[in-house]
Order: sequence, then structure tokens, then C-alpha cells
Amino acid sequence: MTRSIRILGIDPGLRRTGWGIVEIAGNRLGYLGCGSVTTHAEDTLAARLLAIHDGLTRILDEFRPDEAAIETTFVNKDAKATLKLGQARGIAMVVPAKAGVPVSEYAPNLVKKSIVGAGHGDKAQIRMMIGVLLPNADPSSDDAADALAIAVTHAHHRQSVLLKVAVR
Amino acid sequence: MTRSIRILGIDPGLRRTGWGIVEIAGNRLGYLGCGSVTTHAEDTLAARLLAIHDGLTRILDEFRPDEAAIETTFVNKDAKATLKLGQARGIAMVVPAKAGVPVSEYAPNLVKKSIVGAGHGDKAQIRMMIGVLLPNADPSSDDAADALAIAVTHAHHRQSVLLKVAVR
Repeated sequence: MTRSIRILGIDPGLRRTGWGIVEIAGNRLGYLGCGSVTTHAEDTLAARLLAIHDGLTRILDEFRPDEAAIETTFVNKDAKATLKLGQARGIAMVVPAKAGVPVSEYAPNLVKKSIVGAGHGDKAQIRMMIGVLLPNADPSSDDAADALAIAVTHAHHRQSVLLKVAVR
Repeated sequence: MTRSIRILGIDPGLRRTGWGIVEIAGNRLGYLGCGSVTTHAEDTLAARLLAIHDGLTRILDEFRPDEAAIETTFVNKDAKATLKLGQARGIAMVVPAKAGVPVSEYAPNLVKKSIVGAGHGDKAQIRMMIGVLLPNADPSSDDAADALAIAVTHAHHRQSVLLKVAVR
């Protein structure tokens, strides 16, 4: 019997953090869930970061993923936006790490290439391909679709990543 | 009897996160502790963020501060550095928030002004003034001294900050 592996993909953002869970068993890929953790602009920064923390902690508790994946960040020219994203991304990485779930990072272009076959796919193409790859998934937002794309990317690449870690 | 208030100041950074604890009772300011949480560059980003999380969680557990303070971030021209700082800063804010400890933010110039009397004090001046304000403190690093400076700034400004929050 092949042990199945659950993967959590995260697309962090201060306003919306997308999450998506897929399961691989042998060479079969299945969809388990996706969604967004949203925060309110009128709340304090600490409260918003806590909302992301608590939201992702609930996802971890519910789905108990074995591995997690996140995009390496596109470093924005807008330094304020970069800082906001960085703060949310810190939370998105530490919540799985706290639960002992290893977090892999993938470049945005690699995610696009893994999903749409080219490094410059747009959001609509990613959503369409997620519908093909995970027919049961019905992401209600771009960030949930992106999180699923990151999870699928890790499903495709995890063997080589894990090998690299093992031989280091 | 005046209830004493413990304040945690945090100076976040991916490599070193400084922390400092002061106590105010009436108009007396006392020193309780300071130090740094350091992370190793050869570790994964998730492991480094987890080290900051766990280090600050231990400080919270040990000192049980009532309030926390952190600098608003100087947004760097170097976007990569801003992203690194942002990730560490996210952790530094969420750890107290998780423990129900309110986190106030202060502009770097206000911290310098509160400690050295001018908005352009350098690190050496801040360290010297921390030695005057908190004679028992012996910060072993600039980031621990900066964290104490942030805690002292909050001690000076918290009344007005809390009033603002209360009347909002």
C-alpha cells in the first residue's frame, strides 16, 4: 500500500492568504480543500498577523498536512508592499514549521511552468489548469487557486527536493 | 499600591532579534532583562523564523510582559533586506499578540528622541543613555540595547497611546 502524502500550499498576503490542500498517493493527485484567510484593514497590524496565524493553525489542525510549500517572493519595487508581504509570509512559514511540517520554497516562474507549462502563465490560465488537474476543486479566489498551484508544484517536485535535502 | 507594568521591547531581525524587558511602577523604571535571539544563516528560512518564534515565546513565558513595543520599520531601499526584516517582524508581532499582549509601534526617530533627546542619535548614544536610564542593564549587543530603548520609549508614551486606543 502506498502511503498518501498531504501537501499544504500557501499564497501569503496581509489582506488575503490563500491556502490549498492536495493529497498524492502513488501517482494520483487528489483535492482536499482550499480557501482564504482574510484580514480587516481597520484592525491593528498585530491583530491581522494573528488572524493569519490562527487561520492557518486551524487549517493545519484540520488537514494535518505532511509537507508545505510557498512561493519565493517576487520582490516588489514598492518597499511598503514588500514589507507587508514579508510580515504575512513570515507567519505563513512559521505556522507549519511550528507543527514540524517542512516548508519548501518555489520560484513563481517554476510554479507557473509546472501548472501551465510556461513561466509566464497568467492568473486565468492557472485557474483553468487547476480545474483540469484537480476537477473537484472550486477555488473561490485567485489566491486559493494560487495556493493549490503551489501545492501541485510541490507534488511534482518534492521527490527531487527531498533527495537534495537527504544528500546535503 | 501601584500595580507594576512589564514591557517587552523587540528589535526584530532575521539574523538577530533583540529583546529587552523593563518594569514601571508609578514613575519608577526598572530593568529586568535583555538579550538576543540569533539564527544561523545555513538553516532554512522556516527554521530561522521558527527559532525567532521559539526564542520570543520563551521570553514571553519567562517574563510575562503586560505590553509589548516594536519599531515601525525603516523601509529599506534594498527590497531583499526589507523582505527578510518583514518576515522576522511578522513573527516578532504575532508572538506577543498570540499571548494576548498588545503591541504598540513607534517610529525609529521617536525612539531616538525619547532616549537621547534628538531624532538622529546613533547606536553608541543609545547604548550610553540606556546605561544612564537603566543602570543595571548590561546589553551585550546593539540589538538588545535597541530593544530596551523601544521598551523605555513605550514606558514614556504608553499613557497617551492607551488613552488614544480607549477613546477610539
